[in-house]
Amino acid sequence: MLRRNHIFDTVRQVFEQYGYMPIETPAMELLTTLMGKYGEEGDKLLFKVLNSGNFLEGLDAESVRDAQPNALALKISEKGLRYDLTVPLARYVVQHYAEIVFPFKRYQVQPVWRADKPQKGRYREFYQCDVDVIGSPSLLNEVELVQVIFDVFQKLGIPVVTRLNNRKILAGIAAVSGAGDRFTDFTVALDKMDKLGRMKVFEELASKGVEPAVISRLEPFLELSGTYHAKIDQLEALLAGSVEGQTGLKEIAGIFHHLRNLGLDDRCDLDLSLARGLNYYTGTIIEVRALGVEMGSICGGGRYDDLTGIFGMPGLSGVGISFGADRIYDVMQSLELFPEKNGSLTDILFVNFGDEEAAFCMDLAREMRKAGYHAEVYPDAAKLKKQMKYADQSGIPVVVLAGGNEIAAGKVTVKSMKTGEQEDLAPGELVLALSRLTGKAPAGTHSPKRRS
Amino acid sequence: MLRRNHIFDTVRQVFEQYGYMPIETPAMELLTTLMGKYGEEGDKLLFKVLNSGNFLEGLDAESVRDAQPNALALKISEKGLRYDLTVPLARYVVQHYAEIVFPFKRYQVQPVWRADKPQKGRYREFYQCDVDVIGSPSLLNEVELVQVIFDVFQKLGIPVVTRLNNRKILAGIAAVSGAGDRFTDFTVALDKMDKLGRMKVFEELASKGVEPAVISRLEPFLELSGTYHAKIDQLEALLAGSVEGQTGLKEIAGIFHHLRNLGLDDRCDLDLSLARGLNYYTGTIIEVRALGVEMGSICGGGRYDDLTGIFGMPGLSGVGISFGADRIYDVMQSLELFPEKNGSLTDILFVNFGDEEAAFCMDLAREMRKAGYHAEVYPDAAKLKKQMKYADQSGIPVVVLAGGNEIAAGKVTVKSMKTGEQEDLAPGELVLALSRLTGKAPAGTHSPKRRS
Repeated sequence: MLRRNHIFDTVRQVFEQYGYMPIETPAMELLTTLMGKYGEEGDKLLFKVLNSGNFLEGLDAESVRDAQPNALALKISEKGLRYDLTVPLARYVVQHYAEIVFPFKRYQVQPVWRADKPQKGRYREFYQCDVDVIGSPSLLNEVELVQVIFDVFQKLGIPVVTRLNNRKILAGIAAVSGAGDRFTDFTVALDKMDKLGRMKVFEELASKGVEPAVISRLEPFLELSGTYHAKIDQLEALLAGSVEGQTGLKEIAGIFHHLRNLGLDDRCDLDLSLARGLNYYTGTIIEVRALGVEMGSICGGGRYDDLTGIFGMPGLSGVGISFGADRIYDVMQSLELFPEKNGSLTDILFVNFGDEEAAFCMDLAREMRKAGYHAEVYPDAAKLKKQMKYADQSGIPVVVLAGGNEIAAGKVTVKSMKTGEQEDLAPGELVLALSRLTGKAPAGTHSPKRRS
Repeated sequence: MLRRNHIFDTVRQVFEQYGYMPIETPAMELLTTLMGKYGEEGDKLLFKVLNSGNFLEGLDAESVRDAQPNALALKISEKGLRYDLTVPLARYVVQHYAEIVFPFKRYQVQPVWRADKPQKGRYREFYQCDVDVIGSPSLLNEVELVQVIFDVFQKLGIPVVTRLNNRKILAGIAAVSGAGDRFTDFTVALDKMDKLGRMKVFEELASKGVEPAVISRLEPFLELSGTYHAKIDQLEALLAGSVEGQTGLKEIAGIFHHLRNLGLDDRCDLDLSLARGLNYYTGTIIEVRALGVEMGSICGGGRYDDLTGIFGMPGLSGVGISFGADRIYDVMQSLELFPEKNGSLTDILFVNFGDEEAAFCMDLAREMRKAGYHAEVYPDAAKLKKQMKYADQSGIPVVVLAGGNEIAAGKVTVKSMKTGEQEDLAPGELVLALSRLTGKAPAGTHSPKRRS
C-alpha cells in the first residue's frame, strides 16, 4: 500500500501541477449508461449488481424460466460497476454542465471493475488514474498530456516510449485502401498487430470478408519506417485522396512540432499500427509502454469528440489519458524501482513495562507527535524480547525504554535499532535525539541538513 | 473533492502519527464472508453482484421459476460489495496471518456500500476510515483510539462528545435484571434509546415478551447520572451479582483512569444507553457525536474478541473505530468549518495568444512547475475576455499575458487577479513575482514568511 500510494501521490502531484482538479464518481452507474460503450466484449465484462429487495417482482414465472441470461440480467440488474472512468466522466459532465467552468480539466483516481479472467497485468479490480480536458479542441491539450506522461514516468523512474497515432489517419488509410466501410473491423484487427503480427492481422481481415486487393493496399502503410518526419512526408503522398486523412496528418504534425520545441519528440513515435480498441476515440490516440519489461500498455488515451453526444450533448470535445496504476506497480516491481525502505512509518516505539510506566510514556509519545514524529507505545506489558522483536520486524528505528527506576531518576534510555547504541537522556532531550537518530527535523523547524 | 481530501488527509495523518499502516481490500467479497455478520437487516442491505457469464447455468427451470428472491440471489450471486471495513479486515487477517507482525495496527480508508434508501446522513456509497489494532487485549489500545478521536476532531475543528460503554456491563445489566437470555433483544432496543426515548424502548422490550418485572429492574441502570466516577460507584453495587458486569466495570474504569492522566476524561462520558447494534462487539464500545448539529454518530467502534473466530481463528482480540467521512463532511458544511478558499489549485495561468506564443508560454510554464508552482497554459487561442473569465471563475490568482511584441521585447505582463495590478517583467523574474503574489515559496527554498 505504501508503494501504491507512492504511485498515486506521484500522479496526483503531477496532475495538480498542470492545473487538473480531482473529482470522484460513484462505483455504481446505471447499466443504461454503461452498456454499448465498450463494444460487445466490454458489455460481457461489466459487473452487474442485483436489484435490492425483491428483484423478481413484476416478472412472470415464464419469462424468468425461459429467459436468456443476458436478457434476464438486465431485468433484474439496474446498475453495474464502472468499467472505466471515461464514461462516468461523460455522464458527470452532462449532468453538471451548468456548474462546470470550461475547459474542464479534471483528474480522477478510482478503481474500476472488469469480469476478466485474472492474469499477469490483468485484474478484476484495478485503479485507473485518469486526466482529461473537456471542452477544448486545441491540440495543445494533447501536447500537455504528453508532458504529463513524461513527468509522471520520470518521477517514477520508469523508462518509457510514447506512441502516437490519429484515428483520422486510420480512417484515411481505410478510405484510400477501399476499406472505408469496414473501419471498425480494420481498427479492431490493427489493434492486435503487437500480439499477432502483420500476417495474422491480414488473415483476420480476410476472414471478415475484406477483399485481398484492399488488404494489399493497406500494406504500404504498415511498412512505413524512419522518423516521424519521414513517416509524415510519405503519408502526405499516400493519403492525398482523403480529406480526413490529411486532417489527421496535420494534427499529428502540429503535436510533434510542439513536442520538438519542448525537447520531447525523440521519446515519442508515430506508430500507424496503434489503433486502440475503444470506439469513442476520434482524433489523437496515445499509448505508453515501459522499456525493458513485458507488460501491456501502462498508460493510454486519446481524443473523443463525440463522447457526451451519446448522452444528448453533442459537440463537446474531450481528450484524456489513463494511467494503469496496478500495471505500473508491477513494472516498478519488475525493474526494482521501489526504494529499499523499512516497512514502518513509525519513528519511535516506547516499550511498555506496566500500566504506570505506560501512562508516563503515553504522555511522552504525545509530545513526540506534537513535534511531528510518528510515535507508538507498545500496548501490552509483554516480555521485553517480544517488544524489541516487534520494533525490529516493523522497522522502527528508535526505541525508548523507560522503567520505573529510570522514570523516578528523571531519565529514559534511548536505543538506536540500527546501531544498537543506547544512551540515557532526560525526557526533554528526546526530540533532539530523535531528530539526530532519524534524520528528520522536528515540526516547525527547518531540516538540520538544509541549514548546514 | 478538495474538501473531502482535507478530511481524508487529516485522518490519515493522525493514524500514521500513531503508527497505523495503510491497507486496502477489494470492493467485492464472497457473500459467504459477508452474510450473517451484520444481522438480518444487514444481509438485506448487501449489494449482490450477479455472477458473470451464464449465471443461470446448472439451475433447472423449475427452481428458477419457483425461487424465492433471497434464495435465488445466492444461487446467481457469489460476491457482494463490502458493507463495512471490519469484516474484510477479519478475512484479511486470517488469510495473511503468517506474514503479519502483531499487534497489527492498520488503517483503511475506502468506500463501503449499503442498499439503504438515501437520506440525510445516509448514502448508498460512503467512505469509512477505519483504524484497528489486532492481537492485543490491552486497554491502552482503547485509550489510544480515544486520543486519535480527539486529535482528528481537533484538527478538523469539530467540537465532539465521546461516549463510552462496555458490552460486558450491558451483559451484566441484562443478567442481574433477569434478561440474560434476551441480550440481543436488549441491546437492539437499547440502541434506539436516542431516537425513541426510554418509554418506547421499554414498550419494544415488552412487545418482544420481556416481562414487566425484568423491565422494571432495568430502570435504575438507565437513571444513573453524574460523573463517570459516580456512575461507576453506583454500578459496582448494582452489578455485584455479575462477574461479567464487574469485569466490564474494571475495564471502563481503567480506560477512564488513563484518559484522566491525559486530560481527556472531561470530554468523555460513560453512557449506559450506548449499545451499538453490531453483534461482534464484546468489550468497550465507543461513539462520537458532533456538538451543535443534528447528525447521527460520526465515529464509532469498539472491541471485538471473536471476530476472526467466525473465520476459524478464535482468540485474536481486536479493537477499532470507524470515522464516517461523509457525515463528517456534512457536519463541517453545517458548522461552516471548511476554510473559505478559491476552488483552484492553480497558481498561474498563461494566456494563449496563438500557437507560437503558446509554445513560448509552455516553456515558461514548465519552469514554473519546476519551481513548485501549479501552472496552466490556456489551451485555445480564445478571446482574451474568455480566458480572463476562466482565470476568474477558477480562482487562479496570477495571469501572465505574453503576446508576440512582448516576447520579442523580452518581457511578459503579470497580472494579479486579486488587486488587478499589472507589471512588466523579464521571464527570469517570474518565479520571484509568483512567490510574492501567491505567498508560496518556490520549491527548494524556505517560505519568505518563516524567514522574517
